[in-house]
Amino acid sequence: MSTSQTAPIAFLKGHGTENDFVVVPDPDNAIALSARAVAALCDRRAGIGGDGLLHVVRSAAHPEARAMADDAEWFMDYRNADGSIAEMCGNGVRVFARHLQRAGHVEAGDLAVATRAGVKRVYLAAGSDGPGGADGDITVRMGRALLPGDEGVSVSVGDRTWPARHVDMGNPHAVAFVEDLAHAGSLHSAPAVTPASAYPAGVNAEFVVDVGPRHLAMRVHERGSGETRSCGTGACAVAVAAARRDGLDPAVTGAPVTYTVDLPGGRLVITELPDGSVEMAGPAVIVAEGYIDPVWCETAIA
Amino acid sequence: MSTSQTAPIAFLKGHGTENDFVVVPDPDNAIALSARAVAALCDRRAGIGGDGLLHVVRSAAHPEARAMADDAEWFMDYRNADGSIAEMCGNGVRVFARHLQRAGHVEAGDLAVATRAGVKRVYLAAGSDGPGGADGDITVRMGRALLPGDEGVSVSVGDRTWPARHVDMGNPHAVAFVEDLAHAGSLHSAPAVTPASAYPAGVNAEFVVDVGPRHLAMRVHERGSGETRSCGTGACAVAVAAARRDGLDPAVTGAPVTYTVDLPGGRLVITELPDGSVEMAGPAVIVAEGYIDPVWCETAIA
Repeated sequence: MSTSQTAPIAFLKGHGTENDFVVVPDPDNAIALSARAVAALCDRRAGIGGDGLLHVVRSAAHPEARAMADDAEWFMDYRNADGSIAEMCGNGVRVFARHLQRAGHVEAGDLAVATRAGVKRVYLAAGSDGPGGADGDITVRMGRALLPGDEGVSVSVGDRTWPARHVDMGNPHAVAFVEDLAHAGSLHSAPAVTPASAYPAGVNAEFVVDVGPRHLAMRVHERGSGETRSCGTGACAVAVAAARRDGLDPAVTGAPVTYTVDLPGGRLVITELPDGSVEMAGPAVIVAEGYIDPVWCETAIA
Repeated sequence: MSTSQTAPIAFLKGHGTENDFVVVPDPDNAIALSARAVAALCDRRAGIGGDGLLHVVRSAAHPEARAMADDAEWFMDYRNADGSIAEMCGNGVRVFARHLQRAGHVEAGDLAVATRAGVKRVYLAAGSDGPGGADGDITVRMGRALLPGDEGVSVSVGDRTWPARHVDMGNPHAVAFVEDLAHAGSLHSAPAVTPASAYPAGVNAEFVVDVGPRHLAMRVHERGSGETRSCGTGACAVAVAAARRDGLDPAVTGAPVTYTVDLPGGRLVITELPDGSVEMAGPAVIVAEGYIDPVWCETAIA
């Protein structure tokens, strides 16, 4: 990690439904965050630890975002925990927005955030102590849900097999409604999803139960990661699959449909809109903030 | 977490051979750290994350340490990640000492640290840029190694079985010398150690190979935790077992015996002394420091 600044490098740690991030505020894009530096910072034992890193840069200061600067002042330069580049992360952009609010860069209300997947619409609800409160839900407009249709997809764990719905949220999901979330087992290994031809790039598998009217609970096995505490696109896929199961389609009725979705890491509220796009609302929390130790920077990264 | 201070609560994150800790400096013992608060802070996704928490208090200010205050100015109030109380942690006390050095409370040289297991002797080597450097190895005098004798202990993984040496470092170890560390397999589950009667309280199992003269590499399965990146008492047990295998016994010769031990999380240097006590030397690193968010404190802990 090199920087043209002489000041120590600031960071925050935060999470959205326990999808957690190292946040590195860097308005002027002065910090060269190599893949190695990102991986070191996201290492849970040798570094700070996170599912990914949110590099917070003014759009005008970043070559990948300059063209969006008129629409979105801030660019979420998102990195995966291994240091690779990613386009977008729904829980990440909500934590990103919380940081901007805490830092005084934005207030409650509408916000546009530049990402590698384009400008994302975010809404910060007022907090419990008013518009400046940092505990209101944050909503992000995700992409459109696509339902490739019923191809006889099924998901199996052990001796049990369930029919599943194929939902594409930009990434592939197989959503299975089950009687009991415990039936998904330990999820130490990936559940079997057939036919494999339906998912040439692998699949995220969701297991869902009803816990009340328009209220679901789920567990998720993410491709490449195993069971996780939260998956934003997975919660969106689950809500859309439940709507179709319940005979609800905003594109037909013109009325938004909302489900509350409980994940192991917290609660999200998912709304499908008539244009097919999906909004995800939920908590975004900053846990701590401070500075990265300069000696550590030299030895772990340089 | 409640505090009589009005200032935000400071923290650091650090590690010793990737055994990692949340450090909470609190010289006057003003912060009431409940088990729930410790567990929330050590949560790797919803909190800061660590294998444990080091509450740094002046001995004179803590009822459990006041009697040690003449011998050791600082008390390591160590907590496990689940919030329970623990007596001592060898990697933890080294990170504790590094924090005291960085904060200007102590300098390179000898240091006594009060713990629930009594006063521990620590030595801070000078750093690469002199006595004040924060990158020199830190040594801690661990307890005495006890060798209950050869009871025909063996360790098995899959089809392979190895004879093992029983070493007690205050906690129980079974040390097996193997041809290849890969033979220990994934260590997702505990290796079989027989006879079970030798270890009524469970056992930590170490797998060891020689990588050079007086130079070992190891993997460890810790009871209750699975495979870990580092285990200080495990490295001590391995060095003592290797000394006996190699026909070396400081109690007989009067000469200290030293082995370098490579763990997945880093390198430790272990010295057995003629009195049977064992010294562990290695790196101790502070990664970052800052403040815990007051809103998070209210919502996650209060």
